[in-house]
Amino acid sequence: MLILAVETATDRGSLALADAGRVVGEYAFTAPGSYLQHLLPGLEALLAAAGRRLSEVDALAVSQGPGNFTALRIGLATAKGLAWSLGVPLVAVSTLEVVAAQIPEPDRPVGVLIDAKRREVYLGLYDFSEARAQELDDPRRLPLDALPARLSPPLILTGPGLSAYEEFLRTSLDPEIQLAPLEMRHPQASTLARLARDRLQAGITVSPQDLSPTYLRPAL
Amino acid sequence: MLILAVETATDRGSLALADAGRVVGEYAFTAPGSYLQHLLPGLEALLAAAGRRLSEVDALAVSQGPGNFTALRIGLATAKGLAWSLGVPLVAVSTLEVVAAQIPEPDRPVGVLIDAKRREVYLGLYDFSEARAQELDDPRRLPLDALPARLSPPLILTGPGLSAYEEFLRTSLDPEIQLAPLEMRHPQASTLARLARDRLQAGITVSPQDLSPTYLRPAL
Repeated sequence: MLILAVETATDRGSLALADAGRVVGEYAFTAPGSYLQHLLPGLEALLAAAGRRLSEVDALAVSQGPGNFTALRIGLATAKGLAWSLGVPLVAVSTLEVVAAQIPEPDRPVGVLIDAKRREVYLGLYDFSEARAQELDDPRRLPLDALPARLSPPLILTGPGLSAYEEFLRTSLDPEIQLAPLEMRHPQASTLARLARDRLQAGITVSPQDLSPTYLRPAL
Repeated sequence: MLILAVETATDRGSLALADAGRVVGEYAFTAPGSYLQHLLPGLEALLAAAGRRLSEVDALAVSQGPGNFTALRIGLATAKGLAWSLGVPLVAVSTLEVVAAQIPEPDRPVGVLIDAKRREVYLGLYDFSEARAQELDDPRRLPLDALPARLSPPLILTGPGLSAYEEFLRTSLDPEIQLAPLEMRHPQASTLARLARDRLQAGITVSPQDLSPTYLRPAL
């Protein structure tokens, strides 16, 4: 099962190729303004390094957002087009869940923040006491200032939104809330590929014709 | 020669399928915010109506801009991915030239305006006295207010930017400048397919790996 994973939801993008659950290559790039230029050369380089061909890919995985408006759509358009033309299954995973799944064996709930610009954030809350992450609440878009009242320990907080507003969050949140280390905060295509494999095995796929980015309503 | 043409540069998008120079189907849609959702269903509907399969497509054509930032990138990402995965040639055509080529047998130069927002426009100027359109000047991004001094008869002016700023242009430009009828002003995928066919026959293609949207510097 060769999975090609496309992660372009935030300002750090990546591509990964995973075979039978093992990551055989990952390619990272920054600057969402140039994602369109990076995607196909990156995919080609990954395949070449692994000695595989595009026609051997068994499934596409894509990060569904929320995140950077245009960058997300470039990734989705590419993954949808490739899945459709190759005739292989497509799996979409919430970008919030990808980030949450990067915390190794969390012993408490995980909160994920992705910057929604203008001092707003997307917030996802996940529980990992079962084998697979469970949403503790519907993911939402919130003003940054609403976070302190919503977040309470025990909690691990992570995500690129944490880095974007770290000073405010460090001073405003309950100090018992644990902040994830910097290197875990961005969604990675290798994590996306891992989550996509579970979904594929459970038969959870989406139609390339129908897939849209996640749209999160503002919380009331 | 079956050509699939993807036009998403402006707020009116379209897809066309052309076979041996004959348009066998065209599918139009508006609202650039939903282009990502329209593209693959539209392509599938076009192919089905023509009784053809995606694997029979011989070349992809795409409108390269200038135009709507995100919409353009959705079209390019889709066309690049499809051309790459199908292993067929990709042809990119300036959106300004697509619009210019919609004037039937112009007897004078053609100016094309595409809205660049904030009272700026992209301007392309073409001469049709030879068989193929020639650029009279490098396409540029300009403040709307700079147009009256730049444009003089004999000229036919067209493009979606003309509709966006028609009242200002009608009162500010030399009245000898002819304005194109409304229905010719938006780029159409069928025109893109026609121009792409000429380029394919001349061997003018681009690499899906390298293709980026047109970037136009502001004029000094």
